[in-house]
Amino acid sequence: MYKEKIPKTTIYRLAIYLRTLEKISREHRTFISSQEMGTLCGIDSAQVRKDLSYFGQFGEVGRGYSVKNLMDNLKKILKLYRRRWKVALAGVGHLGTALLSYRGFREAGFEISCAFDPDPKKIGKAIQNAKIYPPHRIEEIVSKEKIKIGIIAVPGDFAQDVAERMVSAGVRALLNFAPVRLNLPSGITVKNVDLSTELISLPFYLK
Amino acid sequence: MYKEKIPKTTIYRLAIYLRTLEKISREHRTFISSQEMGTLCGIDSAQVRKDLSYFGQFGEVGRGYSVKNLMDNLKKILKLYRRRWKVALAGVGHLGTALLSYRGFREAGFEISCAFDPDPKKIGKAIQNAKIYPPHRIEEIVSKEKIKIGIIAVPGDFAQDVAERMVSAGVRALLNFAPVRLNLPSGITVKNVDLSTELISLPFYLK
Repeated sequence: MYKEKIPKTTIYRLAIYLRTLEKISREHRTFISSQEMGTLCGIDSAQVRKDLSYFGQFGEVGRGYSVKNLMDNLKKILKLYRRRWKVALAGVGHLGTALLSYRGFREAGFEISCAFDPDPKKIGKAIQNAKIYPPHRIEEIVSKEKIKIGIIAVPGDFAQDVAERMVSAGVRALLNFAPVRLNLPSGITVKNVDLSTELISLPFYLK
Repeated sequence: MYKEKIPKTTIYRLAIYLRTLEKISREHRTFISSQEMGTLCGIDSAQVRKDLSYFGQFGEVGRGYSVKNLMDNLKKILKLYRRRWKVALAGVGHLGTALLSYRGFREAGFEISCAFDPDPKKIGKAIQNAKIYPPHRIEEIVSKEKIKIGIIAVPGDFAQDVAERMVSAGVRALLNFAPVRLNLPSGITVKNVDLSTELISLPFYLK
């Protein structure tokens, strides 16, 4: 419906707002102003109001946003309300293992339910709730489990192949940690995660 | 000089532009338009032009930006031009080990030169160029090596302590992967990395 008009960066910032609200709701806060949201998220408060205005009127005059109410609304917009998403992980090296144990994914409503790695010592084992399979079983397991979201944590040379296998089995959105640009059919959403970007912006602030 | 007025989000986007330019320079491209930069970075092209306009006039009429020239200018702005930054890492678990092997950091001009972990099996070993020390030696090693940038990849319960040790030894900017908000003196720059944020924004795009 509204999807054509909403900038991708707005959707990304909604995810930042949601994570921030989850943190402050643990501190038993009930209301928050757009100014404070902006400060906590490192985003201009006018941008906060503009992003939210695409979806409705969430603030209350003089009180700001209800934390609980805005969290629920953001979850509904982001399709995270009262539902969990199963995720397939390709690559159980150090990064993949770190991701399997990453609490934030579960808190946010995601469960890595299967993982793929060619290492015979890993195949057949389970980390958290994810059983580890060999890569040639990606199509079979992903389509059986009806998984729509994949994470790529394999070396760059293997990323395109495992991504294609996931997509052919029904995956429609990918989080890609491999340092390569994936070439996939239109209609597949890919988010490239570059861990360097945050580090690169630090020296600017050094005297 | 110009630092007061530049939004943090602009600095972050400059880092995205730089990483993107590094990728396309490998494809032997010499010029790029702000439209194409925007598309490759997932950022509105007007925003690209606005961000760059804080620092000068980099485009050429009818040709766009010189890839090499803009890369050099961005490196100068971000204090990455012809210099390398030493980085201290706290935590050599799965995430820390993945970060030690992460090629993108080195490409961007950073070298993790020392790491800290309490595991006796790890202490004294080296991964890449980083020797691993016990956490009680943070102050000693960080100040001896004159390190200004730290990465926190320890469990949440230990993050505040190791961050304080780094800061007392001279670290002025931190990349924090621990899922806690660090409480540090003003003047210390902290970037919190939340791996969930990108994942959270994916279901929105699923039909």
